[in-house]
Amino acid sequence: MGDGSVYDTLISGGHLLTMAGEGAGFVADGAVGVEGGKIVAVGPRAVVEGNATARRTIDATGRLVMPGLIDAHLHSASVIGRGWAQEVQPWMASAYGPLMAHAADADAPIATLWALMEGVANGTTTFGDYDAPMEALVHSHVRLGNRAVVCGGISELNWANRAAWLADGWTPGDPTPLDRAHGEAALAAELDLHERWHGHDGGRISVILGPHAADFLSGELLVRAAGEARRRGISMHLHVAQDVRENEATLRRAGLRAIPYLDSLGLLGPDLIAVHLSTATPDEVALVAARGARMVCCANSIGIIDGVVPPVAAFQAAGGLVGLGSDQAPGNNSHNIFAEMRAVAMFAKIAAGSPLPMPAWRVVRMATIEGARVLGIGDRVGSLEEGKEADLILLDLDRPPLAPALLRPARNLVPNLVYAESGRNVRLSMVAGEVIYADGEFLRVDRTEALADLTAAAIRLQNAADADPTLSGLPIVELTRSGRI
Amino acid sequence: MGDGSVYDTLISGGHLLTMAGEGAGFVADGAVGVEGGKIVAVGPRAVVEGNATARRTIDATGRLVMPGLIDAHLHSASVIGRGWAQEVQPWMASAYGPLMAHAADADAPIATLWALMEGVANGTTTFGDYDAPMEALVHSHVRLGNRAVVCGGISELNWANRAAWLADGWTPGDPTPLDRAHGEAALAAELDLHERWHGHDGGRISVILGPHAADFLSGELLVRAAGEARRRGISMHLHVAQDVRENEATLRRAGLRAIPYLDSLGLLGPDLIAVHLSTATPDEVALVAARGARMVCCANSIGIIDGVVPPVAAFQAAGGLVGLGSDQAPGNNSHNIFAEMRAVAMFAKIAAGSPLPMPAWRVVRMATIEGARVLGIGDRVGSLEEGKEADLILLDLDRPPLAPALLRPARNLVPNLVYAESGRNVRLSMVAGEVIYADGEFLRVDRTEALADLTAAAIRLQNAADADPTLSGLPIVELTRSGRI
Repeated sequence: MGDGSVYDTLISGGHLLTMAGEGAGFVADGAVGVEGGKIVAVGPRAVVEGNATARRTIDATGRLVMPGLIDAHLHSASVIGRGWAQEVQPWMASAYGPLMAHAADADAPIATLWALMEGVANGTTTFGDYDAPMEALVHSHVRLGNRAVVCGGISELNWANRAAWLADGWTPGDPTPLDRAHGEAALAAELDLHERWHGHDGGRISVILGPHAADFLSGELLVRAAGEARRRGISMHLHVAQDVRENEATLRRAGLRAIPYLDSLGLLGPDLIAVHLSTATPDEVALVAARGARMVCCANSIGIIDGVVPPVAAFQAAGGLVGLGSDQAPGNNSHNIFAEMRAVAMFAKIAAGSPLPMPAWRVVRMATIEGARVLGIGDRVGSLEEGKEADLILLDLDRPPLAPALLRPARNLVPNLVYAESGRNVRLSMVAGEVIYADGEFLRVDRTEALADLTAAAIRLQNAADADPTLSGLPIVELTRSGRI
Repeated sequence: MGDGSVYDTLISGGHLLTMAGEGAGFVADGAVGVEGGKIVAVGPRAVVEGNATARRTIDATGRLVMPGLIDAHLHSASVIGRGWAQEVQPWMASAYGPLMAHAADADAPIATLWALMEGVANGTTTFGDYDAPMEALVHSHVRLGNRAVVCGGISELNWANRAAWLADGWTPGDPTPLDRAHGEAALAAELDLHERWHGHDGGRISVILGPHAADFLSGELLVRAAGEARRRGISMHLHVAQDVRENEATLRRAGLRAIPYLDSLGLLGPDLIAVHLSTATPDEVALVAARGARMVCCANSIGIIDGVVPPVAAFQAAGGLVGLGSDQAPGNNSHNIFAEMRAVAMFAKIAAGSPLPMPAWRVVRMATIEGARVLGIGDRVGSLEEGKEADLILLDLDRPPLAPALLRPARNLVPNLVYAESGRNVRLSMVAGEVIYADGEFLRVDRTEALADLTAAAIRLQNAADADPTLSGLPIVELTRSGRI
């Protein structure tokens, strides 16, 4: 650098948080040179600029430049039912399942696009999207231009059969009957998805396998899914110990709690992305970490739907790597990694009764480089380092809650990002060197059109749900009728 | 209404959350008529509009109209040190005190204006501001046009003497020596402030008395302050049981924990706004509620600086009224009541290990009508009802995290406001019928000028703090030096 290089793009001025090294990697008055979608120079402005020239310069004066955020686990299409599933117990059977069953598959790509737009506007550049039908949803990722590690999910649980379960005496909270054909079709779709989409768009799209959870599919299918993933050298994205129902189900089926059961099947390994671990005992947390699996914490979602703080601190203490996820909007209620950063930091303090656990610098790494490693793409994104893809965001340091930006004798940028920023100061998002969002506009997608599509889909969902008389006793319907909400 | 009335302003279309009644007071497709700064009509659009006309109409189509939020407790001027005091124990002596001692009184009005702008942009219309020198700071409130219930605070604790304390062997965590002359001057200033400013600007400014805390001033001065407040028929704004140091100090001085000590002095009564109650035992919580005092919960601040969940649920169960406060930006790190709503709801669930406590509809009432009652102005603001001041905000329902807005069979507006909204969707803020903020701009204040003033003040603060060698061992300075932040 500084040797007469010509950059495609030079991002110049402002401060950097590179995430290189052990901390946040602060560089005052820095610059980033981008060439062929990759970072080819990063550091102090004087060094990066030298006598180099650039075809395009992005002025980052008064901005903070940092890696794009990693949302390591979300169900993008469920945003259509935002805010509909919470404050009940059990959440899945008393709210999410019956209400979201009315969301049409045909509308799912519209919802996914909306969720991704929300995430990108809040600084996320990579989504670990776990939703179906992914064959349709993946087009929304490609269209918006973000990076994604996707799976459609493999499950033998079919909510379309709920009326039949109810007729058979099933009540919310009971283990749900499994539908093997449903699961087989999902596995086949997942393998087909991998065949067609893995590596698409210069690697922006990766496909992994998503066996849903120990209680959502049979042991046979869990083992087959793991075999297929290992044969392809890809990760598995699995909900692990997500609630008490999961342990109850595996105890009934196999006499083991969920984590020992998964271990007995050989599912716990370095290729596993273990989501939640909400009900894991300390020994189970240590076991998952010892097997080399990675963890995703969805702090707000699990807090809202179960009142639980996932064992992030324990997993990290056992040497495990943790990323952050926004999970699902019916009970989160947003796709915003800034909100997740604040939550994981705050909940850890409250759980410990001390201000000391989970300091901001650890949390900002979980939202960037560690999240990237959790998704298996830490060699390509998650930090601003030479050779990595140019996935980065610019934030406005001249507005609350980032202003005043203080540098001496202590810097306040990282604490304010974690404890206060909401995403509204994100001014620009770049993926593989391409600007996909700037100053409130999406470069590839028309917001007005996306909103019109969403609004029409939301009307279809409301019409369908409103016509279902079995929903009238749900708690959130009651709260609506009584005028509380 | 509908009888040929002429409104000054008609806010028409969109949905309302009035907070009238027991819940959120939802009205579909509503309207609000404003005359002489007051609400004269509110309800369904067809009823309010009737054959009335308006000199000005604000189109609220696609918007949510609700009461302006109440930030019942903040220290506005401390925003200059945003993010500087957290992740340490004890917070006051190891971070806030020594760092913020370098903030110049002359710069305080600049900082206050910035904090208020942050709050207003996030939907707050009333601030319970507790900061000094209020005689100077109150001008910032008047300038921006918000409503405020202010006090400068009465304290015998003088951080300017810290070097002398240290020389005398004082260490952080020890009770701080009291300076009676400092306290007397503060009380005199407070009474003078009341005399000059109470009721200013058509009642937008109210002045109450702010004895700081049981450990920050002597019993004599606490009792005198209470007498002066009662003689004037105004409230007292007091930090109560805010940390373990307070109990230790009152135990040493009077042999009683803070709350019994305050009760022995006759301080607990219906005129008391009791802030925090962080260390209150269940019996103490019940005592404060039984005496008729009101509570302010600063969930994020207390979570960050102490890892504690204030006893909101217990205080409410004892029949007490609770408002929300943003407290102080060095350890919050924002003045944003949406962030406080989410925190108080989430922390209650986590503390209880259940998704059921502190539902969204209760929380949105704490941020509006209950917060107004806590500040003693619930008869004038906090809900959209005829005869009340027109203090209200409009939010954009067409953007995440409020879109899609679902109405049938369940409404998601209140849950999404509480669990997801960050304030970025606030499009307009009105106080006493006057628009003070719209579409990102402040009507009375130039943002560029305010930023320039803030930036200059922040440089002065950094220069002063950077020149103080006693700060070099502070934890946040260490984190900066090591490159963690």
